[in-house]
Amino acid sequence: MLCVGLDTEDQLVPAHFREESHPVRAFNEAIVEATHDLSVAYKLNLAFYEALGVDGWADLEATVAYIRSRGDCFIIADAKRGDIGNTARKYAEAFYDKLDFDAVTIAPYMGRDSVTPFLGRPGKWAIVLGVTSNEGALDFQFLPVDAEQRPLFERVMSKVAEWGSPTDTMFVVGATRTDVLAQARAAAPDHFFLVPGVGAQGGDLNAVLDATMTMDGGLLINSSRGILYAGKDKDAIPAARKAAIELQQAMAHKLAERAII
Amino acid sequence: MLCVGLDTEDQLVPAHFREESHPVRAFNEAIVEATHDLSVAYKLNLAFYEALGVDGWADLEATVAYIRSRGDCFIIADAKRGDIGNTARKYAEAFYDKLDFDAVTIAPYMGRDSVTPFLGRPGKWAIVLGVTSNEGALDFQFLPVDAEQRPLFERVMSKVAEWGSPTDTMFVVGATRTDVLAQARAAAPDHFFLVPGVGAQGGDLNAVLDATMTMDGGLLINSSRGILYAGKDKDAIPAARKAAIELQQAMAHKLAERAII
Repeated sequence: MLCVGLDTEDQLVPAHFREESHPVRAFNEAIVEATHDLSVAYKLNLAFYEALGVDGWADLEATVAYIRSRGDCFIIADAKRGDIGNTARKYAEAFYDKLDFDAVTIAPYMGRDSVTPFLGRPGKWAIVLGVTSNEGALDFQFLPVDAEQRPLFERVMSKVAEWGSPTDTMFVVGATRTDVLAQARAAAPDHFFLVPGVGAQGGDLNAVLDATMTMDGGLLINSSRGILYAGKDKDAIPAARKAAIELQQAMAHKLAERAII
Repeated sequence: MLCVGLDTEDQLVPAHFREESHPVRAFNEAIVEATHDLSVAYKLNLAFYEALGVDGWADLEATVAYIRSRGDCFIIADAKRGDIGNTARKYAEAFYDKLDFDAVTIAPYMGRDSVTPFLGRPGKWAIVLGVTSNEGALDFQFLPVDAEQRPLFERVMSKVAEWGSPTDTMFVVGATRTDVLAQARAAAPDHFFLVPGVGAQGGDLNAVLDATMTMDGGLLINSSRGILYAGKDKDAIPAARKAAIELQQAMAHKLAERAII
């Protein structure tokens, strides 16, 4: 269930990687090497690559290729795209075809034609924002939108679920709002959730697992900063592996309790 | 008021530009050359560049630099970004600092901390989605969200307006929904609107101007496909200029009526 988030800040790459010609890429490769037997997925946050311009885009392509070379892993573009139909089709082309990602995170505000170009492609997934882990989630996602006073995020999740199926759609459900995890699961009982916010953002792993784990697991639990920056300098990679092991074992324990594995 | 949208599809670049080493870039430069005396802004749709990978990102950087070299123009990254605070700061760095854009379009679903990193930078602007021009706008943007049954887009616009000011925030208001243009203007009376959807998407220019023009103008009217693909082959550039002149004259006529210019 573990997803490692490669939100790699060039400023935070340990010193000994900075001597490499492509420090971000070299650090990513070392993290992947140290964690790929523990994780089922990697999530690359586009902002960190776009901030480096053309070089960052090259790092992104190289990192995806490196993950592919290490075996069978699910690779997510955390891009939060969302635009009118003809533009959404171009984004799908960019992330699925040009960059070889398996999945893209999508913002739902623009509705159906901004999501459907990412659906119906075998083995490819749209991961649509449901309820997010940040403080700003409270501004709009919890507004009551119908006679039953259901919050917007529930409406978004149940509506988006109608456009695709549990084989091409997942939802982002933040780990920091433990009080609404069960509500989110009720809105999309059969869909995988990508859960950010465990670790640096303060989400509680056990609360997430208790409220949202399905019979099949049904979860990808993401940790980015908690793994990438677990240690400093020469300790960065061993510490990252240790942090990944701890998360993976905590999840395995819960899965064993429920006899899923 | 004219904004030319450089949603440049590599497949649709006229044949004689394809002989150049960078066809998209060469076509963009010719369009800018033919329209920069008529337009106040250019809007680059990121999807079309990202679909070309590293080469597309290089085209993007080169096009921005070319527009800057032609004089005083406002340059918009139509990127529809929106993410948690630390990621939003990286996107601001990518578009404002690394790429030298003046403005970025932003999706509001994740709330305040996804928007504020783009505010408070003199001369830089967040252009937040209010009501969009596509059919999917009906899925969520019109849901009634309060006791007065105001639609979500109005709440978004009035809330976002509180976070910044009319000197660092604009709104995207689609031209295709003429029935709600006045409502959108009432929600943000002092803010500039970026209005896509005139032309290829079917929006009516005069309806937009009548409903949303302020004493200062207060509008950027975008046309992308209606200008880029107005003509074919050798006629592409002259036809683009002609289309830009027609739009610009229609706007100048309205402005003169109201004695703004």
